[in-house]
Amino acid sequence: MKSYRKELTFNVPSRRAFINITPDVQTALRDSGITEGLCLVNAMHITASVFINDDEPGLHHDYDAWLEHLAPHEPVSSYRHNRTGEDNADAHMKRQLMGREVVVAISGGKLDFGPWEQIFYGEFDGRRPKRALIKIIGA
Amino acid sequence: MKSYRKELTFNVPSRRAFINITPDVQTALRDSGITEGLCLVNAMHITASVFINDDEPGLHHDYDAWLEHLAPHEPVSSYRHNRTGEDNADAHMKRQLMGREVVVAISGGKLDFGPWEQIFYGEFDGRRPKRALIKIIGA
Amino acid sequence: MKSYRKELTFNVPSRRAFINITPDVQTALRDSGITEGLCLVNAMHITASVFINDDEPGLHHDYDAWLEHLAPHEPVSSYRHNRTGEDNADAHMKRQLMGREVVVAISGGKLDFGPWEQIFYGEFDGRRPKRALIKIIGA
Repeated sequence: MKSYRKELTFNVPSRRAFINITPDVQTALRDSGITEGLCLVNAMHITASVFINDDEPGLHHDYDAWLEHLAPHEPVSSYRHNRTGEDNADAHMKRQLMGREVVVAISGGKLDFGPWEQIFYGEFDGRRPKRALIKIIGA
Repeated sequence: MKSYRKELTFNVPSRRAFINITPDVQTALRDSGITEGLCLVNAMHITASVFINDDEPGLHHDYDAWLEHLAPHEPVSSYRHNRTGEDNADAHMKRQLMGREVVVAISGGKLDFGPWEQIFYGEFDGRRPKRALIKIIGA
Repeated sequence: MKSYRKELTFNVPSRRAFINITPDVQTALRDSGITEGLCLVNAMHITASVFINDDEPGLHHDYDAWLEHLAPHEPVSSYRHNRTGEDNADAHMKRQLMGREVVVAISGGKLDFGPWEQIFYGEFDGRRPKRALIKIIGA
């Protein structure tokens, strides 16, 4: 069994953003030399997500508005977590809605994807360096 | 390390439906000859889910109503994604709530499940052929 | 390829609770002797979650209030599932929001975690024995 590990670092200048990391995962897969297996991609921070969906700016706008509706940033004081001095409780909620990680099949040396699948890093509390992990195991 | 890959195709006549695919995954597992490992089952489309829950029609009715409450289909014009000519922005939201994929342990040649676990394909934008992927790795 | 399997059992005296199971998973990893691979941790029941987030009591209070807002327990009669004699339909919803499982990279014999990642069992319908599964594969 072969395994491969790589970290990606993000420094998003805004509080929230969606970044297409599919090319980074494809590069990691090539570097791994693995042709059959599973690829885990996860946020290493608990106020960020890795998820798979469409690379369409209108949809990303909709996701942002929808997440803000289901888990609003304001009023900051409505969250007990924010009494610790943080203002990011909403980011912990948004991350649960969008998920921590994806597991992708590796078949024939490629990400085994349907027609529109793309991997995104979802930042919900940016403006500082944060990381995602790529771990590939297989043969 | 052994690996096995199989696609399932669905052609749901309605916009939304939940389909129990546990027997299909069990057949794939038998065909794989793998007895210890991990089994990934994921939607290959970004307006569909694979998830694990109960095979109880009342619950599926509740899920459908609850998802429609949290991410309503109408008004279609409320989603920027739908300006692309689609009317399925809500399906992209519903899929995030229910998840893209499950990873199931394989132990002793079986899906290593608790008492009520069943695997479902959740369709949120049907009326055309769509696929799910089964990928099993192990020994 | 090596594999390892272990069940954890919980007997939560209240309906809902979050339990940090990171030490249990670390013990399982040590016992497995696996140093490179993937570790699946999943709830074996469909009214419970396994998820990764912060071990901060204020945040857990916020999660509980937020989940109750998005999928309220009462009125019990508003859910068709509860006509089966259950009163836990809301727990099936809460579990989908928080997720069934996590997959964690194993690198150098350790859970390959960011600075604040901790694994939790989320109980949404307690007061009876319930289980989570740890399955580790690798080398």
